[in-house]
Amino acid sequence: MTAPPDVLISEVGPRDGLQSVQATMSTAAKCAWIDALHAAGLREIEVGSFVSPRLLPQMADVADVVRHAVGLPGLTVMALVPNLRGAQAALATPLHKLTLPVSASAAHSMANVRQTPAQMVELVRQVVALRDASAPAVRVEAGMSTAFGCTLQGRVPEDDVVRLAVALAEAGVDEVGLSDTTGMADPAQVRRLFRRVRAEIGTRTGAAHLHNTRGLGLANCLAAWDEGVRTFDSSQGGLGGCPYAPGASGNVVTEDLVFMFEAMGVRTGVDLERLQAARAVLAAGLPGEPLYGMTPEAGLPPGFTYADGRRPSAATSTLASADADRS
Amino acid sequence: MTAPPDVLISEVGPRDGLQSVQATMSTAAKCAWIDALHAAGLREIEVGSFVSPRLLPQMADVADVVRHAVGLPGLTVMALVPNLRGAQAALATPLHKLTLPVSASAAHSMANVRQTPAQMVELVRQVVALRDASAPAVRVEAGMSTAFGCTLQGRVPEDDVVRLAVALAEAGVDEVGLSDTTGMADPAQVRRLFRRVRAEIGTRTGAAHLHNTRGLGLANCLAAWDEGVRTFDSSQGGLGGCPYAPGASGNVVTEDLVFMFEAMGVRTGVDLERLQAARAVLAAGLPGEPLYGMTPEAGLPPGFTYADGRRPSAATSTLASADADRS
Repeated sequence: MTAPPDVLISEVGPRDGLQSVQATMSTAAKCAWIDALHAAGLREIEVGSFVSPRLLPQMADVADVVRHAVGLPGLTVMALVPNLRGAQAALATPLHKLTLPVSASAAHSMANVRQTPAQMVELVRQVVALRDASAPAVRVEAGMSTAFGCTLQGRVPEDDVVRLAVALAEAGVDEVGLSDTTGMADPAQVRRLFRRVRAEIGTRTGAAHLHNTRGLGLANCLAAWDEGVRTFDSSQGGLGGCPYAPGASGNVVTEDLVFMFEAMGVRTGVDLERLQAARAVLAAGLPGEPLYGMTPEAGLPPGFTYADGRRPSAATSTLASADADRS
Repeated sequence: MTAPPDVLISEVGPRDGLQSVQATMSTAAKCAWIDALHAAGLREIEVGSFVSPRLLPQMADVADVVRHAVGLPGLTVMALVPNLRGAQAALATPLHKLTLPVSASAAHSMANVRQTPAQMVELVRQVVALRDASAPAVRVEAGMSTAFGCTLQGRVPEDDVVRLAVALAEAGVDEVGLSDTTGMADPAQVRRLFRRVRAEIGTRTGAAHLHNTRGLGLANCLAAWDEGVRTFDSSQGGLGGCPYAPGASGNVVTEDLVFMFEAMGVRTGVDLERLQAARAVLAAGLPGEPLYGMTPEAGLPPGFTYADGRRPSAATSTLASADADRS
């Protein structure tokens, strides 16, 4: 792959996925999965969360995972930090980027972290100051959860989202991402909100973190792409949320997202065959955990070419492909 | 619902779905399902196929189903006809619209109907003449299959699709729809092709018939909507194609498509609660057949309003809704 990618696919499975499943993946298995994701071409991975191991024992080894991942060339290693203590622990490791969840919904924020959104902005300011003092090369993202709606308070006024994005940018974060935490976004709303946020904070507008709860994940990603978003969060196999029935997943599935962009002629830098190999590594590390994704099941269509003109290897192009049907 | 819908959702399940499943639904069950779909607000339904009952015994009662369906007020009753004999049989019933599948891929056309696309255009011309002579009020659609790719020949040149659309319009059809028969379309291609076809044949540009084989169904519908397409084929529960694993379906799921549009503020005329009731009627008529759809599993989000401002009833809004999660 010579030309640089057109979009950055930010893999959140090792954090968002692994913290949501019952099983605890071993550190070795996490590192093997991250290696395989990197080998597939992923260049940003959220590898864990600096949270109390009492709350999330699955994340107890996050510092070890960070130290492994930073050895992978060209990879931006991210981790989530929910509070100042987590930020201190994170900034003591050689990670590249941290992300702070800040809810646009006051109800969600109080229920989740017992803080108002305004208090969370103040926390963000403190984390930025800590970063400036101790590790100025580390990027800080605020991931705005419930930006498209909240199960507790229902609709979240768009003005609240825009105001919070501005406050977070003023607090000094490098990027503000918008998250559809509960799968309530629709494409028209995605377009409106990213347009409004971009108009206010420009290039600090960050990733689209969209869910597939009601099947709109990829349509919402397309809508965000149309508005100029160039970083997309997703998780391999949709890991990290099957709140409902077969096929229902929380996160957008990395495999399907990469397929959509590559088919459209948008370079992701990700190789779908190696991504399939990473899926096998994930499956081996989390036996019995259901993995989702339509493209992994259907295989690549005959005649498929990547956006950069490469063709899949013969091995993968013989994966299942649809039989011709009537209409 | 006072204002007219912004899009026409054309339900193809009773034809495309039922011809693809092993079981044969009874005539009474088909009619009950069609009644329930109509009660949900669907105003175009493809109720069956005038094909040899030896080939598709599931469709042997199509004339009876048509005669029942035309009694439903405001409903456009469609059926598929694969050949002249089918058209003759169809035009002897009181149906409103017939659709002829014409493949853009020569390989697919030969394999499927042992005719070249040019021979199929000639057939379409004969069917139009028959319609003109015997039932001039009946509309004729050509549904162009493999318009976005073909498992047999791989890529289908876009010039072939545009040329065939022009030939079909010149042959006298009222509408030319584009079908992603094998789930190979991507949003960029959908936009390009509908734009080019519309530039050539204008308002004769018909429905988008898009599949969800690789998860891109709704994203492709959004792309078609952006290009001015206002008729969308879909099937309830994605009936009619689960070629792969759980969650994989052929047709776009009507429930998810309606949810996407209504959430976007696009009026479909369809009531999602009554559509859920129709799903139960379908399930009762086809015991054991898997039905898909993310919205039916997840339920409507809290605070959901239809495009026309209506709110769901309390009964449905208490369906499962996502729990707040972290990001």
